[in-house]
Amino acid sequence: MQFLSDNAASVHPAVWEAMRAADEPDSPYDGDALSGALDEKLSALFGRECAGLWVATGTAANCIALATMVQPHGGVVCHREAHIEMDEGGAPGFYLHGAKLLLAEGEGAKLTPESIRAVIDPIRDDVHQVQPHAISITQASEYGGSYRADEVAAIAALAKERGLGLHMDGARFGNAAAFLDCSAADAAGPVDALSFGFVKNGAMSAEAIVFFDPQAADIARYRRKRAGHLQSKGRFLAAQVHAMLKDDLWLANARSANAAAAEIAGACGERLMHPVEANELFVRCTAAERETLREQGFGFYDWGADAARFVTAWNTREEDARALSKAIADL
Amino acid sequence: MQFLSDNAASVHPAVWEAMRAADEPDSPYDGDALSGALDEKLSALFGRECAGLWVATGTAANCIALATMVQPHGGVVCHREAHIEMDEGGAPGFYLHGAKLLLAEGEGAKLTPESIRAVIDPIRDDVHQVQPHAISITQASEYGGSYRADEVAAIAALAKERGLGLHMDGARFGNAAAFLDCSAADAAGPVDALSFGFVKNGAMSAEAIVFFDPQAADIARYRRKRAGHLQSKGRFLAAQVHAMLKDDLWLANARSANAAAAEIAGACGERLMHPVEANELFVRCTAAERETLREQGFGFYDWGADAARFVTAWNTREEDARALSKAIADL
Amino acid sequence: MQFLSDNAASVHPAVWEAMRAADEPDSPYDGDALSGALDEKLSALFGRECAGLWVATGTAANCIALATMVQPHGGVVCHREAHIEMDEGGAPGFYLHGAKLLLAEGEGAKLTPESIRAVIDPIRDDVHQVQPHAISITQASEYGGSYRADEVAAIAALAKERGLGLHMDGARFGNAAAFLDCSAADAAGPVDALSFGFVKNGAMSAEAIVFFDPQAADIARYRRKRAGHLQSKGRFLAAQVHAMLKDDLWLANARSANAAAAEIAGACGERLMHPVEANELFVRCTAAERETLREQGFGFYDWGADAARFVTAWNTREEDARALSKAIADL
Amino acid sequence: MQFLSDNAASVHPAVWEAMRAADEPDSPYDGDALSGALDEKLSALFGRECAGLWVATGTAANCIALATMVQPHGGVVCHREAHIEMDEGGAPGFYLHGAKLLLAEGEGAKLTPESIRAVIDPIRDDVHQVQPHAISITQASEYGGSYRADEVAAIAALAKERGLGLHMDGARFGNAAAFLDCSAADAAGPVDALSFGFVKNGAMSAEAIVFFDPQAADIARYRRKRAGHLQSKGRFLAAQVHAMLKDDLWLANARSANAAAAEIAGACGERLMHPVEANELFVRCTAAERETLREQGFGFYDWGADAARFVTAWNTREEDARALSKAIADL
Repeated sequence: MQFLSDNAASVHPAVWEAMRAADEPDSPYDGDALSGALDEKLSALFGRECAGLWVATGTAANCIALATMVQPHGGVVCHREAHIEMDEGGAPGFYLHGAKLLLAEGEGAKLTPESIRAVIDPIRDDVHQVQPHAISITQASEYGGSYRADEVAAIAALAKERGLGLHMDGARFGNAAAFLDCSAADAAGPVDALSFGFVKNGAMSAEAIVFFDPQAADIARYRRKRAGHLQSKGRFLAAQVHAMLKDDLWLANARSANAAAAEIAGACGERLMHPVEANELFVRCTAAERETLREQGFGFYDWGADAARFVTAWNTREEDARALSKAIADL
Repeated sequence: MQFLSDNAASVHPAVWEAMRAADEPDSPYDGDALSGALDEKLSALFGRECAGLWVATGTAANCIALATMVQPHGGVVCHREAHIEMDEGGAPGFYLHGAKLLLAEGEGAKLTPESIRAVIDPIRDDVHQVQPHAISITQASEYGGSYRADEVAAIAALAKERGLGLHMDGARFGNAAAFLDCSAADAAGPVDALSFGFVKNGAMSAEAIVFFDPQAADIARYRRKRAGHLQSKGRFLAAQVHAMLKDDLWLANARSANAAAAEIAGACGERLMHPVEANELFVRCTAAERETLREQGFGFYDWGADAARFVTAWNTREEDARALSKAIADL
Repeated sequence: MQFLSDNAASVHPAVWEAMRAADEPDSPYDGDALSGALDEKLSALFGRECAGLWVATGTAANCIALATMVQPHGGVVCHREAHIEMDEGGAPGFYLHGAKLLLAEGEGAKLTPESIRAVIDPIRDDVHQVQPHAISITQASEYGGSYRADEVAAIAALAKERGLGLHMDGARFGNAAAFLDCSAADAAGPVDALSFGFVKNGAMSAEAIVFFDPQAADIARYRRKRAGHLQSKGRFLAAQVHAMLKDDLWLANARSANAAAAEIAGACGERLMHPVEANELFVRCTAAERETLREQGFGFYDWGADAARFVTAWNTREEDARALSKAIADL
Repeated sequence: MQFLSDNAASVHPAVWEAMRAADEPDSPYDGDALSGALDEKLSALFGRECAGLWVATGTAANCIALATMVQPHGGVVCHREAHIEMDEGGAPGFYLHGAKLLLAEGEGAKLTPESIRAVIDPIRDDVHQVQPHAISITQASEYGGSYRADEVAAIAALAKERGLGLHMDGARFGNAAAFLDCSAADAAGPVDALSFGFVKNGAMSAEAIVFFDPQAADIARYRRKRAGHLQSKGRFLAAQVHAMLKDDLWLANARSANAAAAEIAGACGERLMHPVEANELFVRCTAAERETLREQGFGFYDWGADAARFVTAWNTREEDARALSKAIADL
């Protein structure tokens, strides 16, 4: 019973089916019909014109999106625990040519206008200090919190006021939308670009970078190729995105993962370190308690010395979630 | 009847099968059993210890391989028509942090010790000029020529003498080995790293970077992650590589493509601009002749004003090759 | 009697004097009065609003100027023999984050609209090929040729038509203006940025980057600091620029160097490989002839196997120029 | 009476004299006799073989030194308040191609083995996290503290144990050595490279990067040129270094600055935020108190809302130091 991560879960049957269906020769790279249809599908979903580029990983999605907003001599405000800071092996430094991540605080790994201002207001407007060019937020956050529409709007207002780009890392965007029970448009809010994650949500190897500014997408196309991310059989990535969008599979899968997380959360009570607003649980428990859980066959990561992280996935079985819930309650 | 490129051809059934079989949850990234078994399989194939990393594209494979050999202040000798110079959207500049491509000549897009020396010998040993750090050759070359074992050996000897790394872009490595009718080891020769291409040869989205120096592979692992190329469901890429290696499918597929190319070559005679030693044909023909061919349903790229490029693939049908052969003969 | 280069010649007394005068504590970096007065002085000289930044070297000037025009995924058209390609140790690759130099031909190391078009017209408008973002020309050129006003204007028109930035490397800008007998404005023409060289013309360690687009200067200020080129006692660089501009010392010094070159050129006749339109001479002569000259005490560089390069400086003595002239005539 | 910074103070007469003496044409770049003699002089000073490269700024010195130790995918441990993190406009990101600064804590802006371990020990040995490649410490620190010989030795031992390079930013190296009353060798300890600062200590525009590993110096020479820091009249920078080394002028100047700081420190008592172990004072005082001081003609920077920073220089007059001392005592 694995709760290690959603990042290695199985591929959804509809995704497999779409990929098989794509195995007719078509134009290479993104010249195929499926890739060409992405903009329209995404524009319909978000209710405003946008351009979508597939890439294989969230790291590439985040970095290519940011590269359209940030000059090499600039900086990106992000949370101290953001994936781009903690888990991407320095990819932002590579893609942004040394542009700096400016680390901000915030409960549950969520930024606020105040925490952003605390970072950027002290920056003197002189050349000795790296100036902010963009803000990156994560929806749902690295601690499983979801930004409400007004929270994103407030950050977007600050970004606009200061002339900063706004990027959303949506590795678990579906889980946030499912938790918020809102549309994709409302979950994204007025950001400039979104890394729309599918791999953790049932796809195999396709994320979409959604640009709400078409000019940025034009730059991103060059950056994607330059980074070796323009696959020649790109139709197989486009097919995955289409499968995830069709009949809102992305939302259904996320709801399923969230439901499993909610089931487990119900047993955690005071143990929860953060509200469960997506498909991740950070649960206080001793080493002995973790040992007890592992003996019962549950797989998960330690989170520091006194906690564990459990992640559910689109295909987490109800009985497994219930079993873990019970096991935690019994601790 | 498409002869546009091998880069968008269908995926081989054995590759599909291996991918489906890989759809059991396993450790993410390259922690899965399939990824872990690559080194052994590749070492057996090449008859010497090597380490293999999957990546999704040839561009990424070439650039990550070179990044282990070239410092940012250095240079890479390659042919003026090399893929890394002509078709990768500046990816080497990105991955190598501005290291310079030093362009050499050579018949059929193949380098020789002489053409390499013509580039590096005039470089003064001072800081005003970019010093060569590595050589990159393409097997089979961009004009469909295959390096013989002694040709690679001579270049490797020069590289060793001058302290340069040696990289082989093997986007069509299988086609070269098939033409040369030799082992993988003999087709690679004593290079330091090989971009072993599978996507043009029946795979979907997996190439292998083969490092004959394990230390270089250690660096490459960081570079791959940093470039956003470490896919979380990496087992699906590893599965493709295994499928291609199993029972030498890579060689069988390449032979099939080469046979189709040879069939067509037989009809070209004096029209051939380069010997056909892989699966590409560069054929002199007028615009009117190209029009005639297109009217008969043949797809291909113009090659300048007076020629056409035809590329066969692992699944080019014999009757299509024969039809094109006849059509060219009838021009 | 040294004709090796103008790059190591003595410092003009007026420059020394200005530097000594600057040795009163003032604000650090470019906050001092002298640095602050540069824009006005340069605007007056060029007859249009411009912003000037001092830097210590021509390499830094060229690269910082280009960094304001070229995105990392773009390219710079320059002559195959341009200093940025041949002699800057890969600095453009560093400063432009791997943006590519696109090499063009042209008599006397001068570009023409035709030679530029020959490079950029074949570039397909797709992501696989690096797109041009800027053009860089050298005034006077690496072979001592000076662009006439209409030649620069024609290139500028092409740049504008194609949406490209236009940079002028003016390491020997004074020599060109002196030869053309025209104003600084006419020698620069409608370029976007000029590396206005002083070090080869009597200064010690100061060049000016002149931006005719103030927004570009704002970016350049960050880039200069980020490259470690914002000296804390910047007033000593500003002082040098002021000294060079005062009473058109830059022009007087250049005239002096040109006159010496013209004196020598008079003796060279058919030996001249390029017209002498500045202070450099490329002179055909055998190894034996070069030996003869060296025995007479003349210092210069070989230029390949069959020629020599002579460079005069602001302080080349008339008698030395005459002596060399005679020696060449006597060969 | 300026106590703003030592970075814009006057140039020492001996430095002027040496620069004037250098105004004889010699080989360009670092081919001149003065540049060539640096290694020997520095080796004598440090009592072990070393190679010295001049550069114009401390930012360039730090970054070029680090570039020899850190791969682009690596990281540099430094103090959260280090100059490379706070005041170099992102230069490390530029020079190190996006390598990451890993920020550590420490009293008085000084690192300790413990504070370094607190940063590097939690870094998992996997590709998702940036691995440390080097440590950078500042002597004297950004808060005017000097590392004792055993403190540097302990950090060097840790660096060696972990295979990390060790760099010392010695922008105020002389002030540390003067305070510690020790030799240059003892103030540097077993670091791999030292940015030996002179500009804040009486020079105009020359720092020396001292490499105790000659191989690193070879790389640094290419990096210096590539960054546009190889000045063609480099002899004027070499001359400054020689003047500063001659008869230990660097130490005498630093002693003078330190004495002025000690004079002022004597009046500060409890106001001092950090021990005064060099030429900087961080003094608690209210806005009203600062106003009082400014009314008396003292120039200095505010340090946050409740403090002021005073910096003395080699040429701070005794009477000015005494006056400030008295003024503070009178607050």
